Amino acid sequence: MNRRSYRLEEIAHLVKGECFGEKDFQVFNLASLEQAQNQHICFVNGDKYLSQAEASQAGAYIVTAALKQQLSSKNNFIVVDNPYLAFATLTHIFEKKITQRGISSTAKIHPSAIIADDAYIGHYVVIGENCVVGSNTIIQAHAFIDDQVEIGKDCFIDAHVTITGAAKLKDRIRIHANTAIGAEGFGFAPYQGKWHRIAQLGSVQIGNDVRVGSNCSIDRGALDDTILEDGVIIDNLVQIAHNVQIGQHTAIAANTAIAGSVRIGKNCIIGGGSAVAGHLNIADNVTLTGMSMVTKSISEAGTFSSGIGLFENSHWKRTVVRLRQLADVPLTQITKRLDHMQAQLESLESTLKLRK
Amino acid sequence: MNRRSYRLEEIAHLVKGECFGEKDFQVFNLASLEQAQNQHICFVNGDKYLSQAEASQAGAYIVTAALKQQLSSKNNFIVVDNPYLAFATLTHIFEKKITQRGISSTAKIHPSAIIADDAYIGHYVVIGENCVVGSNTIIQAHAFIDDQVEIGKDCFIDAHVTITGAAKLKDRIRIHANTAIGAEGFGFAPYQGKWHRIAQLGSVQIGNDVRVGSNCSIDRGALDDTILEDGVIIDNLVQIAHNVQIGQHTAIAANTAIAGSVRIGKNCIIGGGSAVAGHLNIADNVTLTGMSMVTKSISEAGTFSSGIGLFENSHWKRTVVRLRQLADVPLTQITKRLDHMQAQLESLESTLKLRK
Amino acid sequence: MNRRSYRLEEIAHLVKGECFGEKDFQVFNLASLEQAQNQHICFVNGDKYLSQAEASQAGAYIVTAALKQQLSSKNNFIVVDNPYLAFATLTHIFEKKITQRGISSTAKIHPSAIIADDAYIGHYVVIGENCVVGSNTIIQAHAFIDDQVEIGKDCFIDAHVTITGAAKLKDRIRIHANTAIGAEGFGFAPYQGKWHRIAQLGSVQIGNDVRVGSNCSIDRGALDDTILEDGVIIDNLVQIAHNVQIGQHTAIAANTAIAGSVRIGKNCIIGGGSAVAGHLNIADNVTLTGMSMVTKSISEAGTFSSGIGLFENSHWKRTVVRLRQLADVPLTQITKRLDHMQAQLESLESTLKLRK
Repeated sequence: MNRRSYRLEEIAHLVKGECFGEKDFQVFNLASLEQAQNQHICFVNGDKYLSQAEASQAGAYIVTAALKQQLSSKNNFIVVDNPYLAFATLTHIFEKKITQRGISSTAKIHPSAIIADDAYIGHYVVIGENCVVGSNTIIQAHAFIDDQVEIGKDCFIDAHVTITGAAKLKDRIRIHANTAIGAEGFGFAPYQGKWHRIAQLGSVQIGNDVRVGSNCSIDRGALDDTILEDGVIIDNLVQIAHNVQIGQHTAIAANTAIAGSVRIGKNCIIGGGSAVAGHLNIADNVTLTGMSMVTKSISEAGTFSSGIGLFENSHWKRTVVRLRQLADVPLTQITKRLDHMQAQLESLESTLKLRK
Repeated sequence: MNRRSYRLEEIAHLVKGECFGEKDFQVFNLASLEQAQNQHICFVNGDKYLSQAEASQAGAYIVTAALKQQLSSKNNFIVVDNPYLAFATLTHIFEKKITQRGISSTAKIHPSAIIADDAYIGHYVVIGENCVVGSNTIIQAHAFIDDQVEIGKDCFIDAHVTITGAAKLKDRIRIHANTAIGAEGFGFAPYQGKWHRIAQLGSVQIGNDVRVGSNCSIDRGALDDTILEDGVIIDNLVQIAHNVQIGQHTAIAANTAIAGSVRIGKNCIIGGGSAVAGHLNIADNVTLTGMSMVTKSISEAGTFSSGIGLFENSHWKRTVVRLRQLADVPLTQITKRLDHMQAQLESLESTLKLRK
Repeated sequence: MNRRSYRLEEIAHLVKGECFGEKDFQVFNLASLEQAQNQHICFVNGDKYLSQAEASQAGAYIVTAALKQQLSSKNNFIVVDNPYLAFATLTHIFEKKITQRGISSTAKIHPSAIIADDAYIGHYVVIGENCVVGSNTIIQAHAFIDDQVEIGKDCFIDAHVTITGAAKLKDRIRIHANTAIGAEGFGFAPYQGKWHRIAQLGSVQIGNDVRVGSNCSIDRGALDDTILEDGVIIDNLVQIAHNVQIGQHTAIAANTAIAGSVRIGKNCIIGGGSAVAGHLNIADNVTLTGMSMVTKSISEAGTFSSGIGLFENSHWKRTVVRLRQLADVPLTQITKRLDHMQAQLESLESTLKLRK
């Protein structure tokens, strides 16, 4: 491993924190509280991790001022407002980066393609006609960059990624292994019992700082483009159909499927295993909890759900029996009828009392 | 881009429509009503797009006779019975096609494989023993065609597709990027607390005109073959387990999982995110709406569902609390008891009245 | 095909069964009861397959002693306690194995990598710095084995698999086509409306005899490792997020998503299309039926569910209308109120009778 160590004070400086204890303490890596050894630094993400921190073997801790006071048995601290953010920052200095630059001897690059001198193009990468690859971008082995695709600077395209459909990617984008971008959308016109293929003529536009996980499918548009705006983050095994538009900084968790022509606003969070039906609009700042199904547009910010949490199996089976009966039960009338009968009963009772 | 333009009259001829306006109007591309410019042609898919059509900058419109009469401000039309089908047809003339033919210098083809002279085999494609690739078939970069696989004519196999398990593909099939066909089915015999692998000896048969999206998994059969009949269309990220059989012209939307040995009939439509349990039969002409779960065979045509649409989160939480109570509520008796008590009450009331 | 035939007695010996009928009967393959021809052997997996067995053309049958007695029209049998297990064993002798060994001329192997002499490395495989590939391991075409990855002996890594993140794989592991192991986990710190990437420093550990299907995503850990223990089996299109730990011999069916830091016990079975929310613990011997959603830890063995089976669509629509009313219906009070009013009614009735 080519990671070097950092002095505690250096690290404090990097995260704009204050250093307490041994300024020259050598930190060799980040670690979890559970598995840390003496040469490691950990972060404490709130009061609920205090007992784990007490028990930890780590040599230094990233904490808030309040947390520091509760960890009197420890010596070395970096105090920050947001330990989780400081941790995120530090992961980048301990990350093993790909430092190779240039074009591998086995890469096949079309003569018309423009590749920045300081890009890295891995083994067996194929890059087609009129492609562009920007400065400091890394394209791992076996990636296939089809004709007319443009990739900006500081991007990371992992192994076995397919980018086709003349997709245009801006800067600082990360596309993880085995993802397909710009493949043909699922467009067919039904006619006389058969499906007639609609060749897809649109493309894909991906904004700055977008992250797409592994094994995702992001289809090209039918006529207009499929668009992921700046800062969108997408987990693994996610389907983005043709002509979808996703607003800035929206996050989509794994195994979610977004059907064709859906428009999702900014700053949304979509839980894993969700599905959104075609041609719907979802407003900004919408959160969907896990396994939600969206069948109507959502016009206002808020949190929405439709995934049911677990039941013990025999309880569940009895519940489903009731669910199958539910349609024929006039739920809204039951309480009304009960109230009405209660009134009748009371009236009868008082009548009887009067006649006593 | 190598697309040429077409005269309006030429396009009318291609879609068997009637041309109105400037017969020599040059059309450079298809476009959406929203984004069209003057050199583009659009289709109007029904009355609900009329206001968008009015506002569109397109130079020509594909419409029905009825729609044409309502677009008096426009000049150039092609009148057809089915504008959507005409649009589907036209996408093929504006599609940028792969015109290369022959075998790339870097492709590795086993000497026993038979490749049609006018096929295209992209860079780094690997083709194994006794494989066959038919006339006019395109195999994109990095595809892996394992031993004994046969592919018919006019097929398109995109980058990073794996075809193994001696799969047999007929003609005019499209397999999109990063899909795995013929990988080993998930077959294990449980014995003494361990899973004992069942090597899969069956294969995969894919009929004419089948379309499989990107990142799909279509496993080989255990003993018999997994079969996709003619005209089946499958979206992205779909799982087809071993020994599944899917009937002609059935469509399956994204992120659906079909478990082992399921038989699905003809002309079915399966909504996205659905799951079908193993060894079930589904009749012809069945439609499943999104996120359906099938746990019993379906013996008759019809539409079926079990996915729940979205609730506002606090409403949903209160609903789930009720769902957890539901099993113990004798739903079918409630109305009966209410009716019975109502009758008792009325009888009491009339008794009292009589005694007045 | 290079499969040879076996004498019935030989097969009986291989599965430790007893041979009845023609000991020298030549068996050329395993087959299903439905499609078997005379030179094939079938297994009969219980009484419910007896009529299919009667009608089968197979030349020999693997049965229990009890089943044999009910198949009086057949001659050749192998009698075992567990026909399904015997079948699993036999699939291995009829499987067409990859017999090639050595490193393909087109593979790119870093000089520091250690590859066993009897491993097979397919065309265009790329193997990075300090990698290890054990004895008798097969790595198919185009696989990408990134720096520091170690793979044990007798493994099978199929085409287009990506293994990165310095993952460590033990022995007898099978990873199917287009799966990504060790890609970066979905870790982002939200701050001032943006997502700040957390570089993932952990790795992936995969135990002996693990099987991972095609198009799966198994992410590397954030700090600690993602761990699949010995004997875990995973179907296709499954998401295993960072820091997940899965206990021995647990099975996970297709299209399931396990979110970050989940711990799943031993011998669990997780139905297809399920989702488990982050940071939960699931005990040993837990079974989840299909499309379950887990939102709380499960502390005891048992079977759990939350996926709803299919309804006819109009029935379903009416059910969902009721579901939307359900939150406001005081279910637990209804029966109590009914009982209470019943008692009141009866009291009134007896009062009236007394006064007659």
